[in-house]
Amino acid sequence: MGSIFGEQLKISIFGESHGTAIGVTIDGLPAGFSISTDRLHAFMGRRRGGQNAFSTPRAEADLPEFLSGIQNEKTTGAPLCAIIHNQNTRSGDYAPFADTPRPSHADFTAIRKWQGSSDLRGGGHFSGRLTAPLCVAGGIALQILEHHGIFVGAHLASVGTALDEPFPIFPDAALFSSIAAKPFPTISDSAASEMQAQILAAREERDSVGGTIECAAIGLPVGLGEPMFDGIENRLAQVIFGIPAVKALEFGGGFALSEMRGSQANDPFTYNENGEIVTKTNNSGGIQGGITNGMPIRLRVGIKPTPSIGRPQQTVSIEKHENTTIEIGGRHDPCIAQRAVPVVEAAVACVLLDTLLSNGK
Amino acid sequence: MGSIFGEQLKISIFGESHGTAIGVTIDGLPAGFSISTDRLHAFMGRRRGGQNAFSTPRAEADLPEFLSGIQNEKTTGAPLCAIIHNQNTRSGDYAPFADTPRPSHADFTAIRKWQGSSDLRGGGHFSGRLTAPLCVAGGIALQILEHHGIFVGAHLASVGTALDEPFPIFPDAALFSSIAAKPFPTISDSAASEMQAQILAAREERDSVGGTIECAAIGLPVGLGEPMFDGIENRLAQVIFGIPAVKALEFGGGFALSEMRGSQANDPFTYNENGEIVTKTNNSGGIQGGITNGMPIRLRVGIKPTPSIGRPQQTVSIEKHENTTIEIGGRHDPCIAQRAVPVVEAAVACVLLDTLLSNGK
Amino acid sequence: MGSIFGEQLKISIFGESHGTAIGVTIDGLPAGFSISTDRLHAFMGRRRGGQNAFSTPRAEADLPEFLSGIQNEKTTGAPLCAIIHNQNTRSGDYAPFADTPRPSHADFTAIRKWQGSSDLRGGGHFSGRLTAPLCVAGGIALQILEHHGIFVGAHLASVGTALDEPFPIFPDAALFSSIAAKPFPTISDSAASEMQAQILAAREERDSVGGTIECAAIGLPVGLGEPMFDGIENRLAQVIFGIPAVKALEFGGGFALSEMRGSQANDPFTYNENGEIVTKTNNSGGIQGGITNGMPIRLRVGIKPTPSIGRPQQTVSIEKHENTTIEIGGRHDPCIAQRAVPVVEAAVACVLLDTLLSNGK
Amino acid sequence: MGSIFGEQLKISIFGESHGTAIGVTIDGLPAGFSISTDRLHAFMGRRRGGQNAFSTPRAEADLPEFLSGIQNEKTTGAPLCAIIHNQNTRSGDYAPFADTPRPSHADFTAIRKWQGSSDLRGGGHFSGRLTAPLCVAGGIALQILEHHGIFVGAHLASVGTALDEPFPIFPDAALFSSIAAKPFPTISDSAASEMQAQILAAREERDSVGGTIECAAIGLPVGLGEPMFDGIENRLAQVIFGIPAVKALEFGGGFALSEMRGSQANDPFTYNENGEIVTKTNNSGGIQGGITNGMPIRLRVGIKPTPSIGRPQQTVSIEKHENTTIEIGGRHDPCIAQRAVPVVEAAVACVLLDTLLSNGK
Repeated sequence: MGSIFGEQLKISIFGESHGTAIGVTIDGLPAGFSISTDRLHAFMGRRRGGQNAFSTPRAEADLPEFLSGIQNEKTTGAPLCAIIHNQNTRSGDYAPFADTPRPSHADFTAIRKWQGSSDLRGGGHFSGRLTAPLCVAGGIALQILEHHGIFVGAHLASVGTALDEPFPIFPDAALFSSIAAKPFPTISDSAASEMQAQILAAREERDSVGGTIECAAIGLPVGLGEPMFDGIENRLAQVIFGIPAVKALEFGGGFALSEMRGSQANDPFTYNENGEIVTKTNNSGGIQGGITNGMPIRLRVGIKPTPSIGRPQQTVSIEKHENTTIEIGGRHDPCIAQRAVPVVEAAVACVLLDTLLSNGK
Repeated sequence: MGSIFGEQLKISIFGESHGTAIGVTIDGLPAGFSISTDRLHAFMGRRRGGQNAFSTPRAEADLPEFLSGIQNEKTTGAPLCAIIHNQNTRSGDYAPFADTPRPSHADFTAIRKWQGSSDLRGGGHFSGRLTAPLCVAGGIALQILEHHGIFVGAHLASVGTALDEPFPIFPDAALFSSIAAKPFPTISDSAASEMQAQILAAREERDSVGGTIECAAIGLPVGLGEPMFDGIENRLAQVIFGIPAVKALEFGGGFALSEMRGSQANDPFTYNENGEIVTKTNNSGGIQGGITNGMPIRLRVGIKPTPSIGRPQQTVSIEKHENTTIEIGGRHDPCIAQRAVPVVEAAVACVLLDTLLSNGK
Repeated sequence: MGSIFGEQLKISIFGESHGTAIGVTIDGLPAGFSISTDRLHAFMGRRRGGQNAFSTPRAEADLPEFLSGIQNEKTTGAPLCAIIHNQNTRSGDYAPFADTPRPSHADFTAIRKWQGSSDLRGGGHFSGRLTAPLCVAGGIALQILEHHGIFVGAHLASVGTALDEPFPIFPDAALFSSIAAKPFPTISDSAASEMQAQILAAREERDSVGGTIECAAIGLPVGLGEPMFDGIENRLAQVIFGIPAVKALEFGGGFALSEMRGSQANDPFTYNENGEIVTKTNNSGGIQGGITNGMPIRLRVGIKPTPSIGRPQQTVSIEKHENTTIEIGGRHDPCIAQRAVPVVEAAVACVLLDTLLSNGK
Repeated sequence: MGSIFGEQLKISIFGESHGTAIGVTIDGLPAGFSISTDRLHAFMGRRRGGQNAFSTPRAEADLPEFLSGIQNEKTTGAPLCAIIHNQNTRSGDYAPFADTPRPSHADFTAIRKWQGSSDLRGGGHFSGRLTAPLCVAGGIALQILEHHGIFVGAHLASVGTALDEPFPIFPDAALFSSIAAKPFPTISDSAASEMQAQILAAREERDSVGGTIECAAIGLPVGLGEPMFDGIENRLAQVIFGIPAVKALEFGGGFALSEMRGSQANDPFTYNENGEIVTKTNNSGGIQGGITNGMPIRLRVGIKPTPSIGRPQQTVSIEKHENTTIEIGGRHDPCIAQRAVPVVEAAVACVLLDTLLSNGK
């Protein structure tokens, strides 16, 4: 139902962009794990806006306050709830859109679904701001996964037409860390420059631009996941499409496989130097039949351009029942993709931890 | 868990390719709907193999026997169970693969997950054959959706590098029917010829080729779906990634949006000639914030090449702990994508009916 | 939704009393467990009618046919489906009740819920016959639980006013077996005679009589279950109230605790001779805060008298919109409680196996 | 999973007795309903302690702060989160029990389940205090149910051996209100006096006493609920057994039916003066086959004596591995049953609202 996901680990997100607070409840978290608040804050910092020209000036601390489930930086086993108070909100900016829905936002669908009662301010419950509590959950999941030798990392694979280099077939935790430490999350620094140029160009034209994110997870045991509708891909897809602005997802070779021959696309098995069975290529993205095969999980997420742009846009006035034009004031990201990098990591981490628990690990 | 999906409509698929029978249980089906067996058989016929040079010679009737939930061609409200007996199986073909897993099949992951106890014959529970019971459920869902004025259709959008033309912005039920009536499910007949040429070329080289499927759904009310993790996209993704060989999925503009500016990607609202609010473009694929906006739902699915190919392939012998080579005998589809067209329709229909029920329609 | 329960182990029951077949799908069963068909048949035999004067003359083999999930008497890991074909049905007996609902049956509610489309013959999906597939699932679960050293047993604790003796504080597997081997499932044979006398008396008066069942489970590890709404009691209750005719359920001291003082009701902890922590009494029924404490689980189920009785009963004619009287022909059990004993065991076994799996055992 | 329940309405409870805050998230609440804070506070007030000699002196405001989902006292459709800050806690009182678990509390099971990491202070997540957020959810559900003409009420049916009179066969909303307005929730005032005498007697002996609660719900449409495992009884049972200290539950005639003949127990149908089909008796408790028949839902809950008593009790020292004795200081209710009356109403209201939504009302 709505804003909850997970089987053994139920992650439930609440809040509206301009309400009192946003937050997350995590039910089913294993007990006794130390959670470093500093590391969590560092992780949260990666999605935060207001830090440079490439994102929104709305700068909030956005640091979670724990209400339950943690005692002395250790999980207690009971449901963990963390909240982030809202502040620095300028609701007036959004007042008009209850009548004139912003194109490609959820205003129109929310108005219709909730019959005019929804809190539309700042996108309400549909705001990208709600990815902050997802990052709280993901940041905690990442720390627990590390105890199982599992690491998750992502980078900005493209912005507009500017491309980063892809992950190598066997990315390692050091690579993930080095990307995470950068102010702009790419592998190649020259790619970062090109991407930034495209973002700034869009910004100058009061426009926005999309991008893609590549994510990988390493260290997973073979045999994780269930067949058919509850495999790793199914669970990841369900959550990743819950990140605002995501409209596309592929695993391993993805859409490119549709142009290949089987003889190219198939991943031949072989023994590696440690006597483990691996595949020579990873077009399966680490998943066969929904189940991990021990290779890195590899996926790519397509992010649409931020729908809030400064230019005049055509819409309707519901009240007047006529076509009209709006200009969206307020503060917006010319590109949301770079801030979504840790959000994708968070989503993947939550799903993997849940799947580990479902498989009795 | 595994082979079950749905909230109000629980669809549970069972069976192994070479076991006694495969089947589906549908719990939560509304009572009193007439289900035409003839129409269901016609729908099932679209995914069946053995009909031409483009698919496997394994020809089975594959028609469902109803055990419950239907009386006098009308749903009773109680769980519906339908089974399809297996026959014409040549299990010997598959015996060796318990030791030498076929590349890019689920043999290896199944062996490890189920510790050698899984029924690997014909791919067991992971076989594409298990899409037949999904089509039973989908064929029933489609008939019920029609009573709500909702229609679902799909076509083969590409095979290898051969492309069909895309759906128009407002596809209609007649278009869906005309494609469904064709022996090869494309909009453009010349595209069909090109695709068939690519399939036959692959077949001649004992190889296989991938493809993509475009699917649309029309007639949906505005406001269907839930925010975040239980939206239309999330639910569709969870089920569509349960179709064997699917490795990619996009909604509306999909990955192409990542290269666009917001001013191009955003769908402007406007009143149509009937005084309804529509969008001028449909890059959102009919879904904003996870919720239907009344425009056609539009999605594209990437299908990898059939992993079973006649050429020798590299794999390992688990027992001998060494690299080795296999040749897969048996009967295979040089391209699975055209048979997956009704399967995608089935998946979409099941999810939409479930979502309608969840929204109290 | 409806006829499905379980978290890691999804058990889905389908079928109508006079349809083609009834059955069960079990999704999530661990792979590689040997299931003895003989033992399963013996277990099923305990719920079967037609064996003596105390139950219905409808005698069917009621033995399950496996469609999937089992190969060479061993679970494969894929969903297991088992069906039981219906036969020996005399549907004509039930035809009139679509207009004149039988008191305290589900006819009226089914008619209203499913708007006249439900299959009412023999109680349709609400028939006690649907406990046969639950027993298939339970019989399998019991065999797997034994591998974990867990045993479940039950006895008929009362019929009308005739009482069996209660389980001792530490019942053992031998006691469970000895009861299971009896034609009438009581601990005390003299209690059995009294109960049978009450059943025969009811039968002679074309009436029926209720009873209670006590069930216990031993060998459970400490710490199984979750707090609040997903504890052992919650899960057991959800399933046990799914057994037709169950209207009451208590754990440990149950309702009697409401008349006690805390000093009597509390279970003092102590070390036993093996150095394990046990409690001196077991008013908690082995469960504290929803979680096992290592003591035997103990519960009592209240079964109402069979609602089908031979006497004339007052009801309404829906069509004529007037009060009327019916006599129910057909074949009925004067007491259903003794046949429900293995059904309660089955329900408990399914829940415990599911909970074990949810807890990663 | 743990502390979440519901299908369409997901209610998720978090918090520990002596942590920062406790609270509840309600996902799936219909939009646009006015929620009176005053009425909610009045409802919450009924479960609050510290008001008289019959309950604990720990007096807290316990009023919820809304973080989301409510704007101008109206539901927005997005998940509602409400928290209650903890205060007035004296954690020192509970420190010793990590080693010497209190009999019939969840200390021992929590220690074992969560391997020593659980927050045991004040019972942690298992504390009766966690019924406050359940009452927030229930208080909101009750207000929404009233818009559907559905009312829920309960009374203290017994304390120890002192009995209140039962609800009449057709209780009405006025009766529910009059009980709710009383300082001690019984129908009969003389019964209240007897009960209070038993509570004070227990208190004087540093002991506690149990009780039972009868609850009814009126105004439900016919045909609500699903067969088998998702009926009204199943859902109610799952939640009601989540209320601490509940060890028994029966519907309609309950355990007493087990001693009856079918001819007594069956509820004859008849037309009432308004031409509606009703039953002459209500041994079914308004539910047949798991589905509402339009009669009042009627259930009875058994509450054990408060396990915290002032007397010395036998337990073990886990560290010293020896038997020992504890005395529980702190503040305790000599009887918890009267405070549980609104909690049972809350649980029932939440389940009924969820079921209404699941049935598309």
